[in-house]
Parts: sequence; structure tokens; C-alpha cells
Amino acid sequence: MIEPFDDTYFMKKALQEAEVAFEKGEIPVGAVIVVDNKVIARGHNLTEMLCDVTAHAEMQAITAAANFLGGKYLKNCTLYVTLEPCQMCAGALYWSQISRIVYGARDAERGCINLNTKLHPKTAIEGGVLADEAASLMKRFFILKRNLN
Amino acid sequence: MIEPFDDTYFMKKALQEAEVAFEKGEIPVGAVIVVDNKVIARGHNLTEMLCDVTAHAEMQAITAAANFLGGKYLKNCTLYVTLEPCQMCAGALYWSQISRIVYGARDAERGCINLNTKLHPKTAIEGGVLADEAASLMKRFFILKRNLN
Repeated sequence: MIEPFDDTYFMKKALQEAEVAFEKGEIPVGAVIVVDNKVIARGHNLTEMLCDVTAHAEMQAITAAANFLGGKYLKNCTLYVTLEPCQMCAGALYWSQISRIVYGARDAERGCINLNTKLHPKTAIEGGVLADEAASLMKRFFILKRNLN
Repeated sequence: MIEPFDDTYFMKKALQEAEVAFEKGEIPVGAVIVVDNKVIARGHNLTEMLCDVTAHAEMQAITAAANFLGGKYLKNCTLYVTLEPCQMCAGALYWSQISRIVYGARDAERGCINLNTKLHPKTAIEGGVLADEAASLMKRFFILKRNLN
């Protein structure tokens, strides 16, 4: 049987959020949070528009998901994010006790894996879902930005 | 000459914020951000009230300071916080490029030092300012909470 709601399906939703960020002139990172195959929260990077380093896609999705659930712990939730979370976002995910993190492209320099950010023991993490699409969107953004400056 | 605006002076302001959190039934952590001997932002832990793991004192102070300054980088700013920042807050401080972090009590288990969270090269960190006062407020909070449950 074909499973319509797989990781690729939800990562596409996160990529749509990243595209919204791109159109706003923000570094294009997007995220959704899913529970029982339903998207309960969305977010995209808004650090420039909000003039706030904390306004990463994941942070907004975490806040929105807790708001939707009426509780601050994101049990049985999966975060789909187009770029490997940074220390801040991974630190927030630690507190949220989220069940699963799925990221797209790796961030070798500022991502939580190489920086050894501690995740909650209840949290599984995996990556590489639509990684090329996510990385390509980032590349296009930085090329465009360079040409504009 | 006596310097009225020293680290102890500003940490007392952070402790006042922690007391506000205490009175609201929140884990009592408070923070202020200072530039040129002026408090430009305040924050206290609101994770319970806002039902949001990201609502730490530091996160709110970072957002408020950027709002005040009209720029997301906290250059020439000092954060005073009653408890050593966690991974999330230290990660946010990394992005902010803040000049200096002064904390009160250590958090050996969940603090950024033992967890090796990367700070920005421009950021200096030191601790132990009014540490006993900050730790004592935390202890009172947890004793009270235990007795109420």
C-alpha cells in the first residue's frame, strides 16, 4: 500500500515554508510540526523582518505547536525542517521533549550535530530528506543576495 | 571613586526580574541587558504562563533589546542573568554576537558551560555574581513547589 503521508510529503510542506522565507528576502529555512499525520504548526525564518536572531523557523513552529496543543511538551510530534537545526533550535527542541526531528540539508558549521548540542533522550533525529532541494534553495538565495549587493 | 554601576548593581536588577517570575509561579530566573550603563531590556522566565519552552528570561531580553536597538546584533551589550544560560539561550546569544554574558548561579547539568555550547568569538562570559542569592531563590521555589504538590 502506498503511504501518502511519508517524510517526503511533510518535508515538502517545510520546503514551501522555506520558499515563503525566500520571497521575503529571508535565509530560506522552513519548518512544520506534525502529529498523527496532521500539520499542527508552520514556521519560516523571519530574523530580518522581525529584527530578531531568535526568529528561526523551528522556534516559531515550536511556539505555535505548543499553542495548538495547549501544552509545552511536543510528545508524539515530528518536526520537519529544511536545514539541520542550530544550537539554539536544538536547545529549544531539547526542552520540548519532541519525539522526532527530520531535517533536510546538513549544516556542518553551525548545525547541532557537529556542535554536539544535547538532545532529549526521548528525541530521535534523522536527516537527508529532500536535502538537495533545501540546499539548492539556500544556494539560489545567497547567489541572488550577492548579485543584489 | 565608587562605581555605582558595577556587575552587582545590574545583577540585582536581574534578581528583581527573577523575583517577579517567582511570584508568578515560574522557575525564578531573570535577566537584563545593559548598554552604556543603561538597562535596555528585561525578561523573566514565563514558560508556564506562555506554555512555551522558548520563553526563557534571556530569550525575551534578547528580543526586547534588539527591538530597542533597532538591530539584531547586541554589540557592546552585556546580559546579566541569574542562572547560567542553557543551550538554547547560549545558542541565541551566539547569533546575537553579544559582547558579554554575566551569570549568577551555575547550572552544572543543563548549563551551556558543561554542555559545551559554542559562544560567538566576540562574546566574553563570566559567572558567580550574586550566585548565592540566585541559587537561594531557586531553592525556595522548589521547596515551595514540593510542599504545594
